[in-house]
Amino acid sequence: MIKIGIVGGTGYTGVELLRLLAQHPEAHVEVITSRSEAGQRVVDMYPNLRGHYDALTFSVPDAKTLGACDVVFFATPHGVAHSLAAELLDAGTRIIDLSADFRLQDAQEWARWYGQPHGAPDLLPQAVYGLPEVNREAMRDARLIAVPGCYPTAVQLGLVPLLEQGLADPGQIIADCKSGVSGAGRGANVGSLFCEAGESMKAYGVPGHRHLPEIRQGLQRAAGEVVGLTFVPHLTPMVRGIHATLYARVADRSVDLQALFEQRYAAEPCVDVMPAGSTPETRSVRGANMCRMAVHRPQDGDLVVVLSVIDNLVKGASGQAVQGMNIAFGMEETLGIAHPALLP
Amino acid sequence: MIKIGIVGGTGYTGVELLRLLAQHPEAHVEVITSRSEAGQRVVDMYPNLRGHYDALTFSVPDAKTLGACDVVFFATPHGVAHSLAAELLDAGTRIIDLSADFRLQDAQEWARWYGQPHGAPDLLPQAVYGLPEVNREAMRDARLIAVPGCYPTAVQLGLVPLLEQGLADPGQIIADCKSGVSGAGRGANVGSLFCEAGESMKAYGVPGHRHLPEIRQGLQRAAGEVVGLTFVPHLTPMVRGIHATLYARVADRSVDLQALFEQRYAAEPCVDVMPAGSTPETRSVRGANMCRMAVHRPQDGDLVVVLSVIDNLVKGASGQAVQGMNIAFGMEETLGIAHPALLP
Amino acid sequence: MIKIGIVGGTGYTGVELLRLLAQHPEAHVEVITSRSEAGQRVVDMYPNLRGHYDALTFSVPDAKTLGACDVVFFATPHGVAHSLAAELLDAGTRIIDLSADFRLQDAQEWARWYGQPHGAPDLLPQAVYGLPEVNREAMRDARLIAVPGCYPTAVQLGLVPLLEQGLADPGQIIADCKSGVSGAGRGANVGSLFCEAGESMKAYGVPGHRHLPEIRQGLQRAAGEVVGLTFVPHLTPMVRGIHATLYARVADRSVDLQALFEQRYAAEPCVDVMPAGSTPETRSVRGANMCRMAVHRPQDGDLVVVLSVIDNLVKGASGQAVQGMNIAFGMEETLGIAHPALLP
Amino acid sequence: MIKIGIVGGTGYTGVELLRLLAQHPEAHVEVITSRSEAGQRVVDMYPNLRGHYDALTFSVPDAKTLGACDVVFFATPHGVAHSLAAELLDAGTRIIDLSADFRLQDAQEWARWYGQPHGAPDLLPQAVYGLPEVNREAMRDARLIAVPGCYPTAVQLGLVPLLEQGLADPGQIIADCKSGVSGAGRGANVGSLFCEAGESMKAYGVPGHRHLPEIRQGLQRAAGEVVGLTFVPHLTPMVRGIHATLYARVADRSVDLQALFEQRYAAEPCVDVMPAGSTPETRSVRGANMCRMAVHRPQDGDLVVVLSVIDNLVKGASGQAVQGMNIAFGMEETLGIAHPALLP
Repeated sequence: MIKIGIVGGTGYTGVELLRLLAQHPEAHVEVITSRSEAGQRVVDMYPNLRGHYDALTFSVPDAKTLGACDVVFFATPHGVAHSLAAELLDAGTRIIDLSADFRLQDAQEWARWYGQPHGAPDLLPQAVYGLPEVNREAMRDARLIAVPGCYPTAVQLGLVPLLEQGLADPGQIIADCKSGVSGAGRGANVGSLFCEAGESMKAYGVPGHRHLPEIRQGLQRAAGEVVGLTFVPHLTPMVRGIHATLYARVADRSVDLQALFEQRYAAEPCVDVMPAGSTPETRSVRGANMCRMAVHRPQDGDLVVVLSVIDNLVKGASGQAVQGMNIAFGMEETLGIAHPALLP
Repeated sequence: MIKIGIVGGTGYTGVELLRLLAQHPEAHVEVITSRSEAGQRVVDMYPNLRGHYDALTFSVPDAKTLGACDVVFFATPHGVAHSLAAELLDAGTRIIDLSADFRLQDAQEWARWYGQPHGAPDLLPQAVYGLPEVNREAMRDARLIAVPGCYPTAVQLGLVPLLEQGLADPGQIIADCKSGVSGAGRGANVGSLFCEAGESMKAYGVPGHRHLPEIRQGLQRAAGEVVGLTFVPHLTPMVRGIHATLYARVADRSVDLQALFEQRYAAEPCVDVMPAGSTPETRSVRGANMCRMAVHRPQDGDLVVVLSVIDNLVKGASGQAVQGMNIAFGMEETLGIAHPALLP
Repeated sequence: MIKIGIVGGTGYTGVELLRLLAQHPEAHVEVITSRSEAGQRVVDMYPNLRGHYDALTFSVPDAKTLGACDVVFFATPHGVAHSLAAELLDAGTRIIDLSADFRLQDAQEWARWYGQPHGAPDLLPQAVYGLPEVNREAMRDARLIAVPGCYPTAVQLGLVPLLEQGLADPGQIIADCKSGVSGAGRGANVGSLFCEAGESMKAYGVPGHRHLPEIRQGLQRAAGEVVGLTFVPHLTPMVRGIHATLYARVADRSVDLQALFEQRYAAEPCVDVMPAGSTPETRSVRGANMCRMAVHRPQDGDLVVVLSVIDNLVKGASGQAVQGMNIAFGMEETLGIAHPALLP
Repeated sequence: MIKIGIVGGTGYTGVELLRLLAQHPEAHVEVITSRSEAGQRVVDMYPNLRGHYDALTFSVPDAKTLGACDVVFFATPHGVAHSLAAELLDAGTRIIDLSADFRLQDAQEWARWYGQPHGAPDLLPQAVYGLPEVNREAMRDARLIAVPGCYPTAVQLGLVPLLEQGLADPGQIIADCKSGVSGAGRGANVGSLFCEAGESMKAYGVPGHRHLPEIRQGLQRAAGEVVGLTFVPHLTPMVRGIHATLYARVADRSVDLQALFEQRYAAEPCVDVMPAGSTPETRSVRGANMCRMAVHRPQDGDLVVVLSVIDNLVKGASGQAVQGMNIAFGMEETLGIAHPALLP
C-alpha cells in the first residue's frame, strides 16, 4: 500500500483524485489538507465519497505528517508546491504536483506568466514533466512530477505525432480549444456561475493564457525548433471536457496521417486514435483517463485538423497524476484508472 | 466467470450495463443482441467502451446462443422478455429483466397499464421483484428477476421504513418525482430533444404513469394494506438522476424518524441515510449504485418529507440489475458496483 | 414619459428590468445605482443592453437624484428599501420594491424570518402587495408597491381559485416548487456555480424558506382562515423558470375545476389557464410576463394537482414590477410587457 | 399591414418568425402551412404563442392562399422553395426564403452539395442574397431574398472587413465555429437528443459542410479573388447561439484593426463591434437580431482572431429574414426586431 497525502483537497481536482484513488488497489489516502476546511469531514463536503472516506478529515498542512507519506499530491493554486516541495523531498516523500509550479523549465518564463518570482528554481532540474506519452522513461522513479495542464495535455497529444516527424509547419500552429467550466475550479467567481456560463459560449484569454508557454514548450521539444502557436481557449457550457481543434499546415500531402497517428500511439494505453472520419465527443472520455483523437485533412488540402478530447479533471489532471504515480512507483500504468467513461 | 448475454443492448440501460460489467471481475459478456444494429461493433456505437469491448458485435437475438449463457439481461421495451423468457429458463439460463414485463404480479393490472395482454402470466409465480432492500432473500438463487423501475426504486426505498412500521397514513401518499431525460431512453422523440427538454421543466403523465401501479404494489406490500398514492413525475433538464420528494402524514410526532431510517438501512450497502437536515443532490449518486436519502419533518408538523435520490441508469436500472445478479449467484453483493459517484 | 430610478441594478432582476423597460414606450431610466459598480457603464456589465443604454452609468445612491424620479424600483437585498423608502415617498416619488421589505404585513413575522428588526414598520399601512390578480384595485395610485416573490407568485396564482371558493382543505396544502438557478441571484456563491448546480437536482430550505410566510399570508387572505402549508423548494439545472406543483384536497369532487380556473382568470392578461390535460413547460413563459397553469385531478381522486409556471425574473420579479407600475400610473396594464416567450 | 404567409412553420425558424412578427407593428400573419400538422392550432404546438396567434391554424400549402399574401417566408427544408417560388412570384407575392434554395448563385455547385438538381435555376438571376451589411442596395424592392445561413452570417460579417480591404491572406482562412443544438432543427434525430448533445462537445461535418460553399461565395465576393477556407463546425451544449472564431493572416501589422472594424460597421444597426479586448458571449445576443464581434491580434503576431457571435435563430435566420422584409418593403430596417437580448 502506498501512503498518500493530498495538499489542498477541496477543489475539483482534489475530489476527483479521491474518487480515482478509492478504486486503486494499492493506494491509501492517509492525510488530506485544507486550511479553510480544517476539521471538516471530507464526506460532508463531498457526499459522493460517503462510504469510501468516512474517517478522513481535512487537516492543516503539516510537513511532518505529509513527510510520512510515500507520495504527496498537490492540488493547489500555484505557489504552494514551491514552498513545501523541498522539505518533503528531503524527507524522502515523492511529489506529484497538479499545479503549474514545476511545468515550465524556464523559471524566468514562469515568473513572467504568473506574475511572481519562481519559488523553487533549484528544484527544476529534478522536476519531470508528467506526460507519459512523451516522457515516460524520465518518469520512472521520478521524485517530483509536474502533471501537465489540461489544455496542454489535449493539445500536445494531438500535435506531437506531426511535429516529431517534422511534417507540420511549426510557425503556423493554431489550437482552438473548448473547455467545460470545471476547468475554472471551484472558486466562487461570478464568471463560473450557472447563470453566467450556462447556455452561452465565449472565448477568453485571447491575448495570452497561462497554458500557452507550457504548450509551446512541449511542442518545441517535439519539433526541435521554435514553434509559432496561437491558442484560443473557450468556455463551454458543460461541466467536464476539453475539445481541442488543432490546425497545422503540412507540406507533404502524401503522408498517411491516419497510419502515422495510429503507429505513434499503438502502445499507449491512455490514447485512442479513432478510425478515419471520426469526430470524438468529450463525453466519450467523461470520467476516464483517456485522450481520444481523430485526424482529418478537409478537402485534401494542406491543412490538417486534429480533434483531441479529454476529461480535463482526469487525463487533464487527477487521472494523469495517478498514471504518473503508477509509473513512478513501478506499478501497472493504468492500475485503478482503467474503467470506461460514463456515457451518457 | 459468469457468461452473460444482453438482449437489446443499444439503449442507455444497455450501454450502462456494459460499462458496469467492464469493471466486474466475474462477468464476461458473451453476446449482445440488437435487431436494428446487428453486425455493428458495440464500440462504434458507444466509443466510451473502446478498449473494453473491441471484439463485441451486436447480433440478431438467437435462443440457442443466449441459452448458452449463465444469465441474460433484458434491456428491452416491454413485451420482449415475455416472448423469450420461457425458452431461456428451460435452457437453464437465468434472466434479469430490466423491462417492465415481470414487475407487476397481477397480469390483469399489467395488461391495463401496458395496453396489451400479459405475454407470460405462467412465469409470474417464479418472477422475483429485484429490490434487494425489501426482497433479498427471495432473490438468492432466483431464476427470473424483475428489476424495479427507476421511479419505483427511489420512491419505495424512501417510504418503506414508514409504511413497514405503520407510521404513515397509507391513504395520503404523494410522490413528486423529478427525472433526468435519460429516463426517456434513447429513442428519437421530439420531446427528448436537447432544444425541447433543455432549459425547461415540466410535469408529465399526471393522469397516470406506468410506474404508478408498480410503486403502489410495493408500498402496499410494505404497508400490508391499500395505499392511496398520487405520483407526479417531472422531466428535468439533466441527463441522469431521479429526485423523489415524498410526502406522508404521520400520526405520532414523537417517533425519531432519523433513527428509524438509519436503523432500517444500517446493513444496506446501497442505501445511504444522510445526516439529519441534509438535502441530497442527484449528482452525489451519478454513476453509482446508491440511493441517498434524508428525512425531514418541516416545522415539526405531521407531514414527513423524504428526499430520495438515485441515478436512474444505475440504482434505477443497470446497477441494480448487477446487484441482483450478484445476489442470485451468491457473490459479494456490491462486486463491481462499489465505485463512488462522479462529482462534479 | 415616466422618469425612472433603479436602486441596486447590478443583479439579475436589475438587468431584466432594464431589458423590459427598453421596450416600454412610456419609460425612461434616469438613474441606476450601485455602490460597488459606481462609475461603470451599464452596458460594460451587461453587453446585451449595448445600443439601448449606452449613456447610462451606475451611480452611488443619492436621495436627491432618486427623489427627482417619478418612480424608483428597488432591486436590492432586503433592508435597503427600509432605509430609503420614507425619504423618497416624502419627495413624492413612488416606490416599487422588488425586495422582501414590504411583502409581509406583520413586522414581527418579518423580523423572525429575516433575523433583524423591520426597518420601516410605520410604512406598512401604505404598502400594497403587488399581485394584480388578487389586489389590483389597491394597486391603482399606490405609492408603495411590494412586488411579490417568485415562488409566492407561482404558488398563490395556482391556489387562489380553490381557496377563494373554499373548495380546498386549507390545512393540507403542499407546494413542491422547482426553480432555475437565477432565483439565487448573481452573487458569487459556490452553490450557484455551473459545476455545482448543473446536471443535478436538490431540495433546499426544507425546514423553512423565507417565502413560506409570504405564501401563507397570501393563501390565508384568499381562504379567510388559517392555512397549513408545506413548501419544499428545489434547485433545478436551468437558468430561468419556476415550476410549482401544488397539491390540495377537495371535498367536493363534482366541481368543474377547469371551468373554475378559466373563469377566475378569464379577464387576466397575464395568467393563462391551459386546456384540460396540459402540462405547462417553464420555457413557454421564458422572458414573458405570464403565468401558465393547468389543473388536474389524477385518477378522479380528491387530490387536486395544479401545475403553475412562471419566469422567476419576469412574472416572478421585474415583469410583475412593470405591470405594477403600469397599474399604479393608470397605463395599459401590459404596456411594454406583452411580447411572447422565447422558445426554444 | 403586410399580409404574410409562412410555409413550413413547425420548425424552430418558424416559431421564431412568429415570435418576432408578433411584435412587428406592420405585419400580420395570414396563413401558415404544414402538411404534417394541418388542422392543428399553432398555439397547441407552441404554447409560448398563446394569446398572440390563437386563431391561427396550420394548413396544407396552397398556392392561391399563399399568392394572396404580400410576402411568403419559406422555413422549409431545401427543395420546397424551388418548387413553389415561380408561381408565387408570378402572383406578385414576394419571397423570403430561409432555406438554402437560392443562396448559391451557381446551380451546379448547389446540386453538388445538396445531392439533387437545382429546382429553379432560372430564378437565380433575381435571387438576392439577403445579408444587408454587404448587399443592402440589392435588397431594396427585391422580390426573392435568399436569407443567409446561420454559420455564413457569423463568418462573413466577421471576415468581410478584412477581405474587402485586401488585408488578409485569402488562401489561409479558418473558421472554427460552435453552434447551439437548435441549428440542427426540430427533427427527431438521435444526435440532437438531450442525452446525446448535452454535456458534451464535438466537431461534425469536417470533410465538408453545406454552409462551406455559401461562406466561400460570400468571402470571395468580398475579396474579389479565390478564397481558401477551412470550416470546422462544432455542436455545443446550448440551445441557441453561434460563436465563430475566425483566423486570418495579415501581412501589414500596422493596420488599426479596431478602427477598421468600427468604421466598417459604424452605420449598421445589427452589427456591434465591441471594445478592444472584448470576448463576446453568445448569450449577449440571445433572442436579438444582432451580431456582436471583437477583433484580436494575439501577441501582436500576424494572425488576426475575430470573435463573432449571433443567435442562430435570429440574426442567423428569422430575425435576418424580418430585417430583409423591412428593407424590401421600404420600412425602418429594425422595425419589430430592435429589442435587447435576453440575459441571463
